Parts: sequence; structure tokens; C-alpha cells
Amino acid sequence: MTVLILTCAEDVTADMVVSVLYDRGVPVVRLDPADLPGQVSLSAEYAQGDFHGHLSTGDRVASMTGLRSIWVRRPGRPAARASHQSEWLTTESEHALYGTLHSTDARWMNHPVAAEQARRKPWQLRVAHHSGFAVPPTLITTFPQMARDFAARYRDLVVKSISGAHPSDPPMALPTSRVEPDADFAGVAAGPTLFQQHVPKRADIRLTCVGDELFAARKLSDPKEVDGRFTDNGDLWSPVRIPDRIVGAVRAYMSLAHLAYGAFDFAEDGDGTWWFLECNQGGQFGFIELETGQPIAEAVAAWLAGRPTPPR
Amino acid sequence: MTVLILTCAEDVTADMVVSVLYDRGVPVVRLDPADLPGQVSLSAEYAQGDFHGHLSTGDRVASMTGLRSIWVRRPGRPAARASHQSEWLTTESEHALYGTLHSTDARWMNHPVAAEQARRKPWQLRVAHHSGFAVPPTLITTFPQMARDFAARYRDLVVKSISGAHPSDPPMALPTSRVEPDADFAGVAAGPTLFQQHVPKRADIRLTCVGDELFAARKLSDPKEVDGRFTDNGDLWSPVRIPDRIVGAVRAYMSLAHLAYGAFDFAEDGDGTWWFLECNQGGQFGFIELETGQPIAEAVAAWLAGRPTPPR
Repeated sequence: MTVLILTCAEDVTADMVVSVLYDRGVPVVRLDPADLPGQVSLSAEYAQGDFHGHLSTGDRVASMTGLRSIWVRRPGRPAARASHQSEWLTTESEHALYGTLHSTDARWMNHPVAAEQARRKPWQLRVAHHSGFAVPPTLITTFPQMARDFAARYRDLVVKSISGAHPSDPPMALPTSRVEPDADFAGVAAGPTLFQQHVPKRADIRLTCVGDELFAARKLSDPKEVDGRFTDNGDLWSPVRIPDRIVGAVRAYMSLAHLAYGAFDFAEDGDGTWWFLECNQGGQFGFIELETGQPIAEAVAAWLAGRPTPPR
Repeated sequence: MTVLILTCAEDVTADMVVSVLYDRGVPVVRLDPADLPGQVSLSAEYAQGDFHGHLSTGDRVASMTGLRSIWVRRPGRPAARASHQSEWLTTESEHALYGTLHSTDARWMNHPVAAEQARRKPWQLRVAHHSGFAVPPTLITTFPQMARDFAARYRDLVVKSISGAHPSDPPMALPTSRVEPDADFAGVAAGPTLFQQHVPKRADIRLTCVGDELFAARKLSDPKEVDGRFTDNGDLWSPVRIPDRIVGAVRAYMSLAHLAYGAFDFAEDGDGTWWFLECNQGGQFGFIELETGQPIAEAVAAWLAGRPTPPR
């Protein structure tokens, strides 16, 4: 039974996991959907109720019915490196690859359908609340007056991207920023805007959940710093004990969201409460593992190598 | 409790359903996501576990917590008619609208997550088989030799789009076509290609499933015609009785696929067997209703107006 890893060539996080799988003797096929068609080939046949398929890249071949698990890491766009690129070829290749992989009994980290839902931040807030997390009051609006009322009620606000697009991806450039309550809110009519009560935090928490395994790391915050994800204040991440209430809430969230992997961001306030900020279903873990020594790649490899789901 | 319809302005199928809902006195808000921001505004607040939101368009306002159901018909791309368009604005508007709607307890026809999965044709074949339909042998491949072997085994083949892109959308132009067994299959290496055993058919069947209600229509085929969807041979659609086995298979499919609406296409062969070709989760029904008189718009309206799901 083979582990299939869908990611681009330059992915050191995937390298860490592949190396553990090699050490354990677990067969691995790693490929980038950008190379289909071309370096990557596929074939799948549906006949009289049977389904047989295989994927090949270079000299490696994986049977689709022999897939143990599929890890969707940082896959390229299908057909992105084809010799004759077109929207049509990308669409057909995308449906051929993911459509046939959806026909397998492999376990997914994470299933694309669950991942798509889990990316929606407004939905995350609701699921987080139902799971038992403390969630800062949040407003998403195109009404300037609603924004003004919210600012009057909560005073200390931040504004952030609704889609969670990474601030380092231009032109999607919106790091989380403080907003003064007397700011001019007229601009929200031009586009839906997310405001959240600012949590005065003493530390950032990154909790990585891999199947049943939880790893939490903590980094002291600079009180003047709002969005600590993309800056370096000299402090390092170090392992931290997870409060019982958070363990239960993480398990509830993962189950409601049908996720096998999730990277949770919390703000720890002065009372020690962990406030849910977001859960990134495809969040990085390499930088945490390097600083804390937590064996996250090992846990991902163990999950991927785990017992396959029984055939339906 | 309001019915929310997401569709473009020129949608006569939606008009048919809206008119039934008006006659029944059911409150309806119809809007096009392309008008957000602009004609369409939204606001949603998450605080202390409560979720309140509303959508407005022109002089109509709908509370998100008071939504009975949401019909995703032919929605435009969010922010497509904004005065300052950008990828960023479309992404933020899309997440704002669908993310907050995903936070409601409304019933969906169809839920976007289920719809995304249901569009994958290779996955449809597997689900169709598990549901009990007869499915023609199908191959998806980039290997010329696999295509040659398949052609040698099944002789009479058709080739069709894997993604199901509509042949009338240039440049996505591939109507289902016959393939001779001695064709040159070398070209499949340039892009994944779907081959299916050709079903010699005496009639096309379109079965529309709306919740628990099933409507089947039949049209005689021109034996020389492969893809009858886009041509007019003078024959009309007329209602036809649904075999018991098909009723059970449709219910199983809808349940496995988590769909409330589906338009199934079958080929009826000389023995009267209905062969599953595809299930289009967003398929049209207006042309069937016009020719058969089957009350499909009425059924859609009844489903949308139905009892809301109890709050979680």
C-alpha cells in the first residue's frame, strides 16, 4: 500500500515527511499535478463495477486501488507545465486526476471537499464556537454604520482579510491591523470587510493537530505587535501544555470540519485564555518543528502510513 | 422564513419558481452575487456565540438566521459588477457571502460543498455503480496503449469531456463523438481523455430529482445521433414511467452525493435498460417542463418552501 503525496518539487516540509516514510520502508509516490500531462501519467478504468487505476511519474507507478493515503500538500495547478497549456487542458487534467482519486478508498489529509469548506473563515468562527473555543466578537460588513456601531461597542479593533489570503502574496496585501474607533468607516461599502475585537495578548499559540496527536507551541508577543506571523521579534517558539478544554474543542472542531490535519492560531490573553483566531487546514509546521523539536513530521508520516480504511 | 435564490437577472427557470413561491405567499429574496458589493449589501456579526446576519438588495432585506432555504441556481461571480473590480475584491466578497451563508442553518439546493464533489465525472461513475445503476465501461487515460487495448475490447466507443464542460462554451468544445477502434490514439498522451463504450440507444432519458420527487422524460433517438442534447430531431420529450430499480438507485445516489437536486441523463438501449451517463447537479429543467407539463418548478418551490431544519 502506497502513500501518495501531491506537492511541488521544492517543498522541504514534504521532504521531512518523505524521509520518515523511507526510513519506515513505506512505499511513497510523490508528484506534482502541474506535471500532468507530461512527466505524470494516469489511467483509470471503470468496468462492470470494478475500478482500476494507476498513476506514474518517472519510474514510479502507484496503483490507485493500492493507495493507503493521499497527502495534499502544495500541489501545482494541473497541466501548468504541459507543452501546450490551455484552460481546457487544466480543467480536464484537474477532473481526471482528482475525480479518479476521489474514486479510491484512500484516506485523505485533507480531503479536497473538506478543505474547501474549512478555508471559509466566517464558517470557521461558527464551527469554533460550536466546538467550545473562545472566539473574539467579529463583524463582516459592507454597511459603514454597522462598522461604526461595532467600533463603538468594542473600541479596540483589528481589520483582517476575510479569505485569509497571505499578506505576502501581492496584490492580496492585508496584514491584520489595528483600527481606531474613530476611524472613517465609509470605505467598507466598497468591499466586505472583517473587523474583530482586538485581543491584548501576551503570547501567540500555534497548535498543530495531526489525526489524534496535538502539538502546541507558544511564543511571547511584543505588546505593540498585532500580527506576529510574519515578523521576528527574537523570541522563539517553545512547547506548551494544552489546557484540557482546548483538547476537547480541537477534537470537536476537527470532527465537525472532517479534517485530518489543522494548524490552529490562538492569542493568549493576560488571563491565560486562548482565543481562537483561525484554523488553517494547510498550515505549515516546519518552522515549529525546527524551533520546538516537536515530532510533527513523524506524526504526519505515521498518520499517512496508518491502517487503510476497510474497503466499502 | 425567507427563501434565498442566488442567480443572475436573466434566468427564466428561476422566474418559474419565484412565481410559484409568490403565489404561495412565501417570502423570497433573489440576488446575484455579481452585485456584491454594490446593489447587494451584507452584514454578519459573531459575538458570544450568537450569529446574526442580513443580506439586502434594493428594498428587500433577509435575515440570515431567518433563511428557510438557499437555491444556488446560476449565480454570477462575486464583485463582477463592482465599480473597482479586482481578484482581491472577488475573493473577499466570495468568502464573505458564502462563508456567512455556510454559517446559517438554511437547507441548500445544492450545498456548494456537495455540488463541487458532484461535478467530478469520474467520481460520479463510481457512485453511480455503488447506487445500483448500469454504467458503461469507461476509461480515462494518458496512455495510448491503454486506449488501444480498451478500443480492442469494446470496439464501439465514444470520447467525451472529463470535466463535462458544455460544448457550446468555446474554447471548451468537445461534443460526445464516436471513435473508430482503429483510430490513432497517440494524442491521448497530450491530455487525459475519457473513452466510454457506446450504448446503442433507442431513446434518451432525462430524470429530474427534486428532494423526494422524481420526474422522468423520454425522447426517441435518431440512431445516427450520439449526443442528442444539443440538436433537435423533431421528437419531443414525453413523461415516462420510472422502473423500480431506477427509483432505488436515484435515491441511493442523491443520498451518497448529499444532493437535493439532480438531473440524470440515461441512454435507453434496445432491451429497455437505462444506462447512467451523468448526473448534473445544476442541470436545467425548464425545457422538460415545457414539453412534458411535469410540475418541476412547483416541486422545486415546494422543496424550498418546506419546513426548515431544526436549529442545531
